[in-house]
Amino acid sequence: MTADRSGTLYGVGLGPGDPELVTLKAARVLSTAAIVAHFRKKGRPGHAWTIAGPHLNGNTIEAAFEYPVTTEIDFREDGYIDAIRDFYEVSACTIMRHLAEGRDVALLCEGDPFFYGSFLHMYDRIRNAHPVKVIPGITGMSGCWTAAAAPITYGDDVLTVLPGTLDRAALAAHLGRADAAVIMKVGHNLAKIKQALADAGRSADAIYVERGTMQGERVVPLAELEDCAVPYFSIILLPGGRGRRIA
Amino acid sequence: MTADRSGTLYGVGLGPGDPELVTLKAARVLSTAAIVAHFRKKGRPGHAWTIAGPHLNGNTIEAAFEYPVTTEIDFREDGYIDAIRDFYEVSACTIMRHLAEGRDVALLCEGDPFFYGSFLHMYDRIRNAHPVKVIPGITGMSGCWTAAAAPITYGDDVLTVLPGTLDRAALAAHLGRADAAVIMKVGHNLAKIKQALADAGRSADAIYVERGTMQGERVVPLAELEDCAVPYFSIILLPGGRGRRIA
Repeated sequence: MTADRSGTLYGVGLGPGDPELVTLKAARVLSTAAIVAHFRKKGRPGHAWTIAGPHLNGNTIEAAFEYPVTTEIDFREDGYIDAIRDFYEVSACTIMRHLAEGRDVALLCEGDPFFYGSFLHMYDRIRNAHPVKVIPGITGMSGCWTAAAAPITYGDDVLTVLPGTLDRAALAAHLGRADAAVIMKVGHNLAKIKQALADAGRSADAIYVERGTMQGERVVPLAELEDCAVPYFSIILLPGGRGRRIA
Repeated sequence: MTADRSGTLYGVGLGPGDPELVTLKAARVLSTAAIVAHFRKKGRPGHAWTIAGPHLNGNTIEAAFEYPVTTEIDFREDGYIDAIRDFYEVSACTIMRHLAEGRDVALLCEGDPFFYGSFLHMYDRIRNAHPVKVIPGITGMSGCWTAAAAPITYGDDVLTVLPGTLDRAALAAHLGRADAAVIMKVGHNLAKIKQALADAGRSADAIYVERGTMQGERVVPLAELEDCAVPYFSIILLPGGRGRRIA
């Protein structure tokens, strides 16, 4: 069955994790959406779903897409890419079926929908076939520099945002040139990132942030972080300040 | 008179301009603050004040700080630096008087308080003397890439944020190395930025965004932008996508 009018896909940015950092616009869209879709790890309720919960109405239908592999696996491995490609294909088909039948779908996005993240894989597959509206959200990195009480950029500071998945030489080269930097996706890249920071002579300023704005939030100077496993979504900050012109 | 207990300074991020992109937390703090302070251009109500308006209670006292010079003047000129330093000193003293007398002050910040902007000049002057809490907001650049329907970063893209105030060679060098870039503070730097984009071979992808998420929003490919004066807070985007690993 195809409806006369397509539903709209809403990419709903939920912000960095604190449920109070949801926007008024996100709350409004969530309160009226027929279908609320989200990605989650297998067997977990999903953090996005928990944040969205208080805003949903009683008739909301949940569409949960469970990642076939965890984000801890290196995304360059072929097995990962095949599994996740199939997963995104199937998820996009499910969403498009709802849209074709005239139902709006709100797809939950931690952080900001257009700043990294799984939403983009849906966006690229759906945007030419159905209307898509995006509601920006506060990024995870904003949440982390706020949690760390670390202003990230002043005046004419340059900010570089680096995925921790890059190799050591690339990380070090970027870090050496940046006034301020944010390193995302730390996880099992931690040892390499520490080496790159040392190569660039920037270890002393680095701050490690885990679960910024959420329960269990943790902020420590990177130099004091013990050697142990850390979550994939933790972040390392190098605050700026060289661009501070008016003291 | 000094109160037994200091008031708290709240740096309240209001987001990129759309009043619905205020967070629940910002709305809550605004509804209870005794003093609501903001910076504005001379003779204007101030955009931040307009956004905050619906959330204020009837007893709110407004503290408006009017910039002595406009942001259009190059901030490297000595006259500008002296005038604005005095202005920030006086503004910080006014805020600290309220705090010393036990009144909470909510200082309005367009975008995110810790990402560029005037709040940092207050933060640096006040944070050692009084409690300060910061509420992050959606950045202007997030608002602009959402307005442009331009996902900014995929997978392992590197994002570089550049103030348009940098010189042509520095801009071109950064642009040549970035997967994705955002150039802030375009204004009278437009001609120089266009040259730097051409130097880096990145002109074709550049998108110009003015008043993202606000009334009068304007999104055009930079190549189609006529040569004329543009606002200081307009932004140029170079969307990423090289880091897209899963097609």
